Amino acid sequence: MLPSTRALASDLGLARGTVVEAYAQLQAEGYLTARRGSGTRVAKIPVSTREAAGRLAARAEPDRRARPPRFSFHPGLPDLTAFPYSAWTGALRRGLRGTPASTLGYGDPRGRSDLREALASYLARVRGVVADPELIVVCGGFSHGLALLSRALQARGDSRIAMEDPCVTMHRSMVATAGMAVAPLPVDELGARTDLLAPRKVAAVLLAPAHQFPLGVVLHPDRRASAIAWARAADGLIVEDDYDAELRYDGQPVGALQALDPEHVAYGATASKTLAPGLRLGWFVVPPALIDAVLELRDAEDRHVPATDQIALAELLRSGAYERHVRRMRARYRRRRERLLVLLAERAPEVRPLGIAAGLRVLLALPPGGPSADDLARRAAARSIELFPLSQFHHDGEPSDPDGVVLGYGALPEYDVEAGLAALGDLLAESM
Amino acid sequence: MLPSTRALASDLGLARGTVVEAYAQLQAEGYLTARRGSGTRVAKIPVSTREAAGRLAARAEPDRRARPPRFSFHPGLPDLTAFPYSAWTGALRRGLRGTPASTLGYGDPRGRSDLREALASYLARVRGVVADPELIVVCGGFSHGLALLSRALQARGDSRIAMEDPCVTMHRSMVATAGMAVAPLPVDELGARTDLLAPRKVAAVLLAPAHQFPLGVVLHPDRRASAIAWARAADGLIVEDDYDAELRYDGQPVGALQALDPEHVAYGATASKTLAPGLRLGWFVVPPALIDAVLELRDAEDRHVPATDQIALAELLRSGAYERHVRRMRARYRRRRERLLVLLAERAPEVRPLGIAAGLRVLLALPPGGPSADDLARRAAARSIELFPLSQFHHDGEPSDPDGVVLGYGALPEYDVEAGLAALGDLLAESM
Repeated sequence: MLPSTRALASDLGLARGTVVEAYAQLQAEGYLTARRGSGTRVAKIPVSTREAAGRLAARAEPDRRARPPRFSFHPGLPDLTAFPYSAWTGALRRGLRGTPASTLGYGDPRGRSDLREALASYLARVRGVVADPELIVVCGGFSHGLALLSRALQARGDSRIAMEDPCVTMHRSMVATAGMAVAPLPVDELGARTDLLAPRKVAAVLLAPAHQFPLGVVLHPDRRASAIAWARAADGLIVEDDYDAELRYDGQPVGALQALDPEHVAYGATASKTLAPGLRLGWFVVPPALIDAVLELRDAEDRHVPATDQIALAELLRSGAYERHVRRMRARYRRRRERLLVLLAERAPEVRPLGIAAGLRVLLALPPGGPSADDLARRAAARSIELFPLSQFHHDGEPSDPDGVVLGYGALPEYDVEAGLAALGDLLAESM
Repeated sequence: MLPSTRALASDLGLARGTVVEAYAQLQAEGYLTARRGSGTRVAKIPVSTREAAGRLAARAEPDRRARPPRFSFHPGLPDLTAFPYSAWTGALRRGLRGTPASTLGYGDPRGRSDLREALASYLARVRGVVADPELIVVCGGFSHGLALLSRALQARGDSRIAMEDPCVTMHRSMVATAGMAVAPLPVDELGARTDLLAPRKVAAVLLAPAHQFPLGVVLHPDRRASAIAWARAADGLIVEDDYDAELRYDGQPVGALQALDPEHVAYGATASKTLAPGLRLGWFVVPPALIDAVLELRDAEDRHVPATDQIALAELLRSGAYERHVRRMRARYRRRRERLLVLLAERAPEVRPLGIAAGLRVLLALPPGGPSADDLARRAAARSIELFPLSQFHHDGEPSDPDGVVLGYGALPEYDVEAGLAALGDLLAESM
């Protein structure tokens, strides 16, 4: 039972109205109860807020971030120190000035029309994609689009998707979370074994035709043809992961598979390699038969990518700053790749670099008789060097023959490239 | 069959290497086939790219954006012209300068730790939320968190959720898309009939205790107690939609229900009313029992909200600029509300404004004998005024008794408030 508002106000030297207001507020929030004629009481709340707060705080904190290694050869990250900070904020400022305020309301689930038009023109020119802006969906990265497509397939009754083996580990778990079973598709030196795709076994296949991850091969023309033939015969879906085609160092990248059959290929790409994964920006050109299902899922969740990031990206694309940045980064990564190959030839000639001259990484095939990739990664970790054994990208997690390391040269900050490569050279020279 | 590279190079006056490269590229992309000894041929592609492109273009374009009305009284939108452009871009620039580059890599699925800490402190202070930063998940708006929670419930085998009737239409379809059945929960002048919740009938209930949408009532203390009692008895989940608590004009808003039982209440709020929906920024405090399931879904899709927007929001919260903006907007909307009430008293005294002095809207109860809300909305549309009948927020879409219009005064740009209110006054005066 609480004192009357009059008594408490007098005790505390406050205006009575203040106390009345406080009682009313605490009553409205459920901490006090008041019945006419019986005064004000503390409400019966079975567990006190304080207790609950204590229990929550006592919950073990998951250790989500381990101490970062001195040198990371992560195969999927660009050099984040090269992010064009001022170009980005400048583009956002200019873009915000140039768009009506309604831009900041609820927008089109596919993304802003000016961004989709800029993307369509860029993709057609640079990648040969058949890109209708009406069929472009701007997503929270490539993975978001992959998840939406998987869920759209699952919702229409499909149950299996073929995925390259080895492939991006995260993609496998994403597809599985969307409720689809994963059928492994082997990869050889001609790329994914699309000749093994059979009608009615899988509803879709995820391919990275321009640069297979992590093996680094290009899908051979015959295999491209097999993939398209399968998609037509089975009315299947090819999801094309075109994650790093802008970063080819020895000529033009092979054009997008999507152009061969826009009704059976969903084309997806990302700003994660050219700008930064933290932007969570990707884009898909979705076949007409699937666009409504994808947008329904979009509408029922986060609705669309933030207007701010769309505005900045559209402005960068329109002004040409995006392509200038990509050219700068291409030159930077090409230099790193060349330095890495020289280093390998000098310090570990037994290790064979595999894969086309492209992207942010090279596959190091380890010689028989030397340490396994797992061993090498453990030795590296002892020197605070992070290496990624090829085996972890295989569906069964088993080492392949030859065993290998998927070595990313993109993630190192530019100022650390010298030191990082030197440390890698020492490790390899001492281990082989 | 194509001419030999030598012949074509000579015909075109090009270096032979250029033609060889072009042939190789077209072959790699699948447009040409070459067999040793039989020359180069155009590949058989069943449908030409050009045909496919034509068919895609011919697909009817959905008319997703109708011409906007002259005056919109949308009940869920803030004044987008008041978005703090320079504060936002300034916060982003300062924030980017102050964070390491690794910030732009793949981040924590819950959001950046500095943003979660800023939110926890803000929510504890302003809303009395028991907010452990470890349990905060930054989402693409409130709706995104609602969808994630619904899917997490659905994945663990739950099948029904109770939702206020009437409520936000979009929330109903979101929950349904996530695979949950919706049980309508009536709302009266004391708020949602939480006293009707029975164990084992529903797994969760979505409530807006501080300001029911669209009726504008506050959940009565007894109903708060019933909700908590139900959640404890049924081990059920309350999803608290705290979408506009910062905008209360006649005193302090009622504190968050979540504080009464953080283990059974998922607290969600948004920047959509205080800043802009286009930012797609919301935040949830998730009960410990559900956090892992929510983060698993997050990890398997867009992973996290863009780093850029998180950085800007964290900086705005830390610097106090967010609260200054909210105070400015609160004063602006309060003035509009007062002007609207005066206008109603003068020009349409038969129309009763209902709901607490809060948020971006008021419920107009229409007098019996006058036009229905649907009629009024049609008359308004003829003058390019957008009105929202209460019936469209009811689960069955039927008009309630009394019939009403959910009138938003937030969406008008400040420069249009005078003209918009005058047009509304004319419409009401002529229609009643």
